[in-house]
Amino acid sequence: MAYIGIDLGGTNIAVGAVNEEGQILSQVSVPTGASRPYQELVKDMAQCVKDAAEKAGLTLSDIKSVGIGIPGVAEEATGVVFNCTNLGWFNVPLRQELQKYIDLPVYIDNDANVAALAESYAGVSKNCRSSVMLTLGTGVGGGIVIDGKPWSGAHGRGGEIGHMTLIPDGVPCTCGNNGCVERYCSATALIRMGRQECFAFEGSQMLVRTGGDPEKLNARIVIDCAKEGDACATRVFNDFVRFLAMAINNITAFFDPEMIVLGGGVSGAGDFLLKAVEALLPRYQMFKALPIPKVAIAKLGNEAGIIGAAMLGKSK
Amino acid sequence: MAYIGIDLGGTNIAVGAVNEEGQILSQVSVPTGASRPYQELVKDMAQCVKDAAEKAGLTLSDIKSVGIGIPGVAEEATGVVFNCTNLGWFNVPLRQELQKYIDLPVYIDNDANVAALAESYAGVSKNCRSSVMLTLGTGVGGGIVIDGKPWSGAHGRGGEIGHMTLIPDGVPCTCGNNGCVERYCSATALIRMGRQECFAFEGSQMLVRTGGDPEKLNARIVIDCAKEGDACATRVFNDFVRFLAMAINNITAFFDPEMIVLGGGVSGAGDFLLKAVEALLPRYQMFKALPIPKVAIAKLGNEAGIIGAAMLGKSK
Repeated sequence: MAYIGIDLGGTNIAVGAVNEEGQILSQVSVPTGASRPYQELVKDMAQCVKDAAEKAGLTLSDIKSVGIGIPGVAEEATGVVFNCTNLGWFNVPLRQELQKYIDLPVYIDNDANVAALAESYAGVSKNCRSSVMLTLGTGVGGGIVIDGKPWSGAHGRGGEIGHMTLIPDGVPCTCGNNGCVERYCSATALIRMGRQECFAFEGSQMLVRTGGDPEKLNARIVIDCAKEGDACATRVFNDFVRFLAMAINNITAFFDPEMIVLGGGVSGAGDFLLKAVEALLPRYQMFKALPIPKVAIAKLGNEAGIIGAAMLGKSK
Repeated sequence: MAYIGIDLGGTNIAVGAVNEEGQILSQVSVPTGASRPYQELVKDMAQCVKDAAEKAGLTLSDIKSVGIGIPGVAEEATGVVFNCTNLGWFNVPLRQELQKYIDLPVYIDNDANVAALAESYAGVSKNCRSSVMLTLGTGVGGGIVIDGKPWSGAHGRGGEIGHMTLIPDGVPCTCGNNGCVERYCSATALIRMGRQECFAFEGSQMLVRTGGDPEKLNARIVIDCAKEGDACATRVFNDFVRFLAMAINNITAFFDPEMIVLGGGVSGAGDFLLKAVEALLPRYQMFKALPIPKVAIAKLGNEAGIIGAAMLGKSK
């Protein structure tokens, strides 16, 4: 028996068959074509499900369930996608629509929750009873896993780590609040803070790498320059790490998971980021003598979307 | 069958027999005498357990387990109290010591977790799948209940809502950090902010009520004056509510429990506090169209300590 996982992104729909151990057996993908009516997207998803099963040498009778990770929020009971901004979806009956083509249980969850679940079944947090994943990308996503199940809260509001307030009355956020974690711990934050340094101090290597145009700055340049010891980039990186350590400490003080997993583009900084965070975390922790949650870099990369979506079925 | 709950406080040890529904059947209490060796305290606790059972017309063979709520942190596996500052306890083998007198399972947890558990079995959050309780007293305690079980985290660090950072680089906290929730959402915070107003504006009713001595200000005076419309007290109360709403929003964004329960001395302000918090909360929430966790005032009062400790056994 196997599971099908669907990673519904703004650019591609990636679909795979996944075994009980969370290993991908086959993979297919089609462009999302996000501007089309949702019915057409779902028809493509259904075809991909069949193709992924066939490619793995399976029929639909070998498949236990289909899971979908979406860049938005869905209601567990009904399978209705409440909100999926990138696709322009509001109140889309995704489960019901997919089941017109595929007679299998369909589970839907947020892509950050799905990534956290993938890591807990087949990645760095395997065998942890509880874990919290932060995806440090354009924004900051969050996923909570308790006893092998994703936790989205009682009203689907949970895991929104990016929109916990870090700095009251701080940088305005797209969500309407100010000072959200996302504004200080994302790739976008690294770029914003890097640009400020470029404007303030002309000598930064960051400016050299962008050919003198701060608009071309990206998170990788900031991190690379910090690794190489550029003073401005180091200042930005140290601020970033301090904000991230504060955000992690708030999660630990409240929830104290067994492991904190860092994913998303910024986590590509690997050990450089991890060591800096680990060095700072103990400073914020109460009960200095108690162990601190282990912090680790996610290891499944892009495959987390398919694996985690598939494991939604296993987690039920 | 029944359970025994022990509320171990700095002043009294309160012990009661509790039935399956979380109702207290009998109650006894002795002074804590916190300066004595722990062995003597535990001997008194054991006698109280026997007395509470007898008073309820039960023998120890009718008792399933003994639970203890402590103002500190214990290790679940060993029953060792890691840290209990008020009693000067460090690494006290509480379970082992009590079992010298009482041959029953003994469960130990933090008093804020225990209060949250009590409310979820017999109080305002009864029948909620998940709830988070904030005890707004001298400090701010926190308790998390998931599916009828207290959640203390993977290392016993969980539920420390009072030590999540609310205002980075804010008011110094007893824990060594700055800007903790406890410094802005406790009775102590109301008093601090009230005194500041008294010094800044001599005309406050708060100052009149203290006979002109801001040192005599307490949380009740601040709240009473705010209720009566005193401008200074209203300013303090509004700030307090804003801080509390921000703290609650951070919990909601991360965990999204079915209910947030407010307990502790400040929650005695009742509807006056509740309405103010409810009015402010929606402003901070993402996904404006999704329901918000219900906020409610705790209803078990002092009995929560015994009931929740007893229910530790039922929750296993």
